[in-house]
Formats: sequence, structure tokens, C-alpha cells
Amino acid sequence: MISQELFKLIDDAIEQRDSDHLISLTQDLHEADLGDIIEALSPRDRIDFLELLADDFDFTVLTELDDSLRLKIVEALPNKRVAEGISELDSDDAIVILADMEEEDQEEILAALPALDRIQLKRSLDYPEDSAGRLMQTEFIAVAPFWSVGQTIDYMRETQDLPDEFNQIFVIDPGHRLLGSVSLDTLLRSRRPTKISEIQHEERLFVEAGQDQEYVSRLFERYDLLSAAVLDEGERLVGVITIDDIVDVIHEEADEDIKRLGGVGDEEITDTVLETMRSRFIWLSVNLVTAILASSVIGLFDTTIQQMVALAVLMPIVASMGGNAATQTMTVAVRALAMQDLDSFNVLRVVSREVYVAVLNGFAFAIILGVVAWLWFSNYELGIVIGAALIVNLFFAGLAGILFPIGLQKVGIDPAIASSVFITTVTDVVGFFAFLGLAGWWFGLL
Amino acid sequence: MISQELFKLIDDAIEQRDSDHLISLTQDLHEADLGDIIEALSPRDRIDFLELLADDFDFTVLTELDDSLRLKIVEALPNKRVAEGISELDSDDAIVILADMEEEDQEEILAALPALDRIQLKRSLDYPEDSAGRLMQTEFIAVAPFWSVGQTIDYMRETQDLPDEFNQIFVIDPGHRLLGSVSLDTLLRSRRPTKISEIQHEERLFVEAGQDQEYVSRLFERYDLLSAAVLDEGERLVGVITIDDIVDVIHEEADEDIKRLGGVGDEEITDTVLETMRSRFIWLSVNLVTAILASSVIGLFDTTIQQMVALAVLMPIVASMGGNAATQTMTVAVRALAMQDLDSFNVLRVVSREVYVAVLNGFAFAIILGVVAWLWFSNYELGIVIGAALIVNLFFAGLAGILFPIGLQKVGIDPAIASSVFITTVTDVVGFFAFLGLAGWWFGLL
Repeated sequence: MISQELFKLIDDAIEQRDSDHLISLTQDLHEADLGDIIEALSPRDRIDFLELLADDFDFTVLTELDDSLRLKIVEALPNKRVAEGISELDSDDAIVILADMEEEDQEEILAALPALDRIQLKRSLDYPEDSAGRLMQTEFIAVAPFWSVGQTIDYMRETQDLPDEFNQIFVIDPGHRLLGSVSLDTLLRSRRPTKISEIQHEERLFVEAGQDQEYVSRLFERYDLLSAAVLDEGERLVGVITIDDIVDVIHEEADEDIKRLGGVGDEEITDTVLETMRSRFIWLSVNLVTAILASSVIGLFDTTIQQMVALAVLMPIVASMGGNAATQTMTVAVRALAMQDLDSFNVLRVVSREVYVAVLNGFAFAIILGVVAWLWFSNYELGIVIGAALIVNLFFAGLAGILFPIGLQKVGIDPAIASSVFITTVTDVVGFFAFLGLAGWWFGLL
Repeated sequence: MISQELFKLIDDAIEQRDSDHLISLTQDLHEADLGDIIEALSPRDRIDFLELLADDFDFTVLTELDDSLRLKIVEALPNKRVAEGISELDSDDAIVILADMEEEDQEEILAALPALDRIQLKRSLDYPEDSAGRLMQTEFIAVAPFWSVGQTIDYMRETQDLPDEFNQIFVIDPGHRLLGSVSLDTLLRSRRPTKISEIQHEERLFVEAGQDQEYVSRLFERYDLLSAAVLDEGERLVGVITIDDIVDVIHEEADEDIKRLGGVGDEEITDTVLETMRSRFIWLSVNLVTAILASSVIGLFDTTIQQMVALAVLMPIVASMGGNAATQTMTVAVRALAMQDLDSFNVLRVVSREVYVAVLNGFAFAIILGVVAWLWFSNYELGIVIGAALIVNLFFAGLAGILFPIGLQKVGIDPAIASSVFITTVTDVVGFFAFLGLAGWWFGLL
């Protein structure tokens, strides 16, 4: 990772527009480190940095940046410069850079590329966002089954334009249909005259280009894949997805879950104040509506509260305990759904477990909170009422916490957006209603 | 993924203790699928399943299970059986199975293994939990720099006990110190007489055996590594970590963050009711204490509320908006810290952004909520008071949401446990105090 000193030197070199010094400072850095430097620079310096490095700037660095920042930078660059930059990249990296750009710019950049690159990139871009077709690399090695190991190795020695790194080669028929694959270590360990067909192993795990990246990443994780063939609708081999792209997807998906659960959208740490404010505003608006709904339940009992202010003091505890219990259940459920650990085999067991846990904890905390309320207000009846309300609320919290996410998943909505905002509405409404309603009835204050 | 029908057939075969049928049903399944089957079986059937498969059961399957379930199963098996099972595995998988067992059982199993395996496994187990030494595989290929490509390839062809899959070989000196590495595709593309020293590239990225797995996984992600050498204190090469193990670590770490943010511990979907209840109980207890603290703030203003019940109706809205705003900020902060996206380069910018966002959203929602309160209770002064209280609370929410996680990280505590439970205490206390205090002062009801 880069030091403050190095960053200072780089910043100074940009200031002085000292291109040579800048190149010597950055030439040994890994693209991930260069990405960090760009993120740490001021918006104006970022473009200067690219201009000063000129041809020495490797566009792979752009794939290391946050989406929104990358978009800003490529939009600030002339299209011709972008075309030159991405012509050096593997197709999957080129796609990352092109993907979010405006269609007009995309067309112009593609038009400036060599024909073969253009066709391959266009094909990838035609697949939907977040699909396997977007993730795949169109550079791969494919040979015929009747080739020998020696022939294959010689072919690889002679071909210049091979993918940067690879760990398997594919075997295809004349119609480009996938027959199997050979891992490099198998190839290395086989004698030169051996036919590829003898060592190839049937590829049972492959990906269709239209499949969602989340599905693809589950496949990689589940079966510990290092790479997977991508087939088009005609079962022709069109690309390969490698584990390093999948690592990014796993991150993105976990990130998405965490952020949705926390009620923030696709926010990134490099976003500006206005972008951040806008994204949070939406969720806070939803929360305002649900909070007003919960408060209107309290409004129903205003005369009850007026006669017994202790209720106003205690009611947030009932709501808060329910909200937290529901959040716990929901967190486990959302994560299990995302990991495909919650399925038809265990859904009944998990739902009933959640209900049992809710009821058991409900009774345990009913006793504790009941005693606290009794001692606090010297009123044992208040203790009984708040205990009963807590049991009711924790029961509904458990039920909502597990059924909400499962239900959302069923109707095709990401269960992670069943975030605290929604789930706590249930526990607020039930909590206030149960506690104030029970108290009003018990003490005859309705 | 497995079908309900297949599962039914397997379940029946276990019921009828039909070992041959069970073997034929399961022999083509991937270990990940077998793991799912074991998780879906009843506890008694799980052991029967292993006994019926006998030698046909591949212990790799156990590494696919949840930690607690795996431990239950290996503890139910005789130690001799476990020793036989793990002697077939790569060392990293063997460690996963041994790691959580009781020391006595570990010793007995290790004693039953061949000497070399025993020594290697013991060395791994001596490294702390969650360290690189635990993750690494001790099977790898290392050659001398003066070897030729041809010699190396012949050596690999002749050696039987090679790691299952690998994508690079290492170059070492006579003292086992790491000199560099050669990727398999480079090896394949080089001519036989080439010296290894000519194609090796200096390994600048390696891992020390004692380093934490989270650090290792960041290194893999950041530099798109497929594998990394592991060195001991004497800089000797002792193992290799591969990306498939890192994928699991990335998952675990994301899982941990999500669960801690949601106020659940190391819970797993296979946990029993009692285990689940116990883990949730602790967090709910913490929440109970903080909720009582917040309520005692309300208690300070009981006479104020008695004179103006509208305050009791509206106060949860102020608290709830603050809680959600704080959760948003905290989610972004915790995630950025975990990803090492928040560092000394941008911490000031991010903190000030959060404060700006908090204040801007505070003013926006103050106007909205102010108007709502005014219309609801036909009292424009109430609107002014609640708007002012909301601005104060959102300001503190933003500040707490960003400073809490950063502070925890500084003192070495995982910021993810700055979960809603703690952060909402701040927003509840501030929210109730600001709103009720301001109202009491404005309306002269203190």
C-alpha cells in the first residue's frame, strides 16, 4: 500500500507538471495502488495525472476505481484517447470501462477500434448488465480434440496474442461447441504424443452468457471453480470467466446486501455530498412515512397516556426490543437467502425455530422488563402489562423477520430491502398498539 | 443443485440401510452437493449416512458444512475413522476438520497419521486461528533456479503426490528460502532448455504464516492473486494459499460484518433453537439496557408530556429518523473500513461529507415534518420545535454514525459491532432530549 510520502511526491509532480518524474514515480506501482492514488487526488488533479502519464498510463487502473468515479474520468477524456487506452486491455476490462458510458460515446469509441475487437466487445455489451456475458473475457485458448499435447504446447508457444493469465484450455468441435477442457497442470504432466481427447475432461459446469452474475458467483463458490466456459444460445463457446472477476462480484453482492440492509443505496465512499444526500433522502422519506404511521397508533391512545404518563416513558422500550429482535431474525434470513442456505429443505425448520426463539426470548425478557417497570413505577400491574406486550411484540417480530424476507424473495424482490425501515414499522405499530391497548384495557383508561 | 426426488431416494436408502444403492446414488455428486444433503438430513441419519458410505465417503465433504455441524459429526465419529478420512485430504482441508476439535481428540487423530503428515498438520495447527498458517496448503511444487524447463516438466510428470490443482510453481534456494515463482502458462510457453531462473519472476507479494486471514484476503483481492506463497519466521517457504480458500474467507468476513451489524453473533442456519436463543439473548440484553437509558430521558419530562400529549405522539418520529440516518452513515463507514477504502487519505473528506449530508437532510426533513406536525395538531409552534429537534438529532446521528466506527477501529475493536444497538442509543437519547427539552422550554412546561 502507498505511503503518505509517495503520495506527496506524486501530488507535487502533478503540480509542477513534471511528466518524467511522475512516470518514474509510478511505473513500478501495481494498478490497484495507482487506483488508490487517483481516488485520493483532487478531481482536477485526476485528469492532469492521466494527461501527464499519457501513453504510460495503463487503462487497467480505471477498472480498480469506484463506478461513479471511473465514469466521471472517462467522460472527461476525449473518446479517441479512451479507444487507444482500451485497445490494450483484455475484453472483460474493456467492458467494465465502456459499460456505464453514454451510448453515443460508446459507439464512437467502438468505431475507433480494430474490427475484431469491436465485434467481440459489441457482443458482450449486448448482454444485459450484471450478466455472465458482461463478465467474460473473449480471449481464451481452444483446440481440437485430435490435437496432441505437443502440438498444443507448440501452438501456445507460438501464439502471441494469448490471454494474460489462464489456467485451462478448452476443447471444441468445428462448430465451436464445447467438448471439454484440460487444466494446465494436466497438460504439463502429460507426454507430448498424448491426444487431447484422452486427457480432456467433460465440462459439466458451464455458464450461459445471459445468466446473472450472482448465479455465476454461487456456482464458482459452490464448486470451487477457477474459471468457467461461457456458452451462447447456440451452445458455442464465446468466452471464459475467471475467478478474479468473481471475487469482485462476491464483494459487490455482499456490499449490496449490507448497504440495502442499512438503508443506503448504491452509495460509494467517493460520492459527493449532493449524491450522498440524494440517495439517503429516499430512504429517510420512506422511514418518515412509516414513523408517522407508528405515531398515529400512539395518537389513538392520547387520553390513556394523559392519565398515565408512565406509559409514554415505557412504550419506546417495547418498540425498541421488537425492532432489534426483528432485525436479528431478518439479518440471518437475508444472509441465508443470499447464500442459498435457506431452501425448501429447511424452510419449515428455520421458520419454526425463529418462532420458538422469539417466544422463548419474549418470556425471558417479559420477566426482566416486568420487574424493572414494577420497581421503577412501584406498580406491579404495569409490570404485568408491559411483559405481556413484549411477548406479543417479540412474537410478531420473529414472524415478520423471517416471513418478510422469504416472501419478498418469492415475489422476486431482493429480500435485503426488507431493511430495518420496513421491519421496524411492524414492530413499532404492534409494540405501541399492544402496550398502550393492553394498558388502557387493564387500567380502564380507554 | 440436488432435487427433492434425489433427496427422497437417498433418505429411503439410509432408512433401508442399503449401502450399495446409497453409494450408486451419491458417487457422481460434487462434495458441495453432498454437503447440502448432509445438512438436510436429520441428525441421526447424518451419522448413518457416513457409516453406510464407509470408505466411499470423501471427507472433503465435511469442509463444506457449517462449522458447528461439522464439529458435531466428527465428534460423533471414532477418532480412528477421522484419521483415515483426513489422511486422504490436502492439508488445508484436514486443518479445517481438525481445528475445532478438542485437543485430546486432535492428538489421538494426529498420532494415527503418517509422520510427515503429522508434522505438517501440527505446524499448521500451531499458528493462531484465522491466520495464514491455518489456511495454507503444505503441498506445493518447488524447484531450484538452475533447473531447466524440461527438467521441471519431467519432474512434474514423474511425481505422483502433487497437489490436486495448482497454477504456479515456486523457486527456492537450498535453505528453502523463496526466490521467485513461475506460472504454469509461462512454463508451458517456454522452450525445454530454458533455465528456470530466466523465466522466474520475483515474488513481491507473499504472506507470513502468522498474518490474519482478513489481511491475506485483502491482498488477494487487491492484487488479483490466484495463489500466494506462505513464509515462516525464517523466510522459508512453508505453504501456499490458493484463491478458492480466499473466496471462503471473503464470504466469512462479509458474513461476520452483516451479522454483527444486525446484532447476531456467529449464528448459523443449522443452529438449534437453544443455541440461537442464547446468541440473540446477549444482544437483546444490551439493547434492553440502552432502551431503558433512553426511556429514562423521557422520564425527566413526564410533567411536560402530561400537559401536552402531542409530544408523546411525535417523539418516536424524531428518534426513529435519527436512528435510521445514523444506521445509514454507520453502514457506509463500517463497510468502507472493512474494505480499507477509508484511510488517512480521505477520512477528513468523508467525515465532513457525512456532517454536511446530515445537516442538509436535517433541514429538508425539518421542513417536511414541521409542516406535518403543524397540520396534524393545528399548532405551528409544535412544527417549529419538532423541526429544530430533528436538525439537532440528525446532526448527532451523522457524527455518531461516522465517528463511532472510526473510533472503534482505532482502539482495535471491530467497528461492525457498533451496530444499531449502540448507535440508536445516541439518537434516542439525543432525540428525546432535544425534542422534549425544546418543547418544554418553548411552551414553558418544564
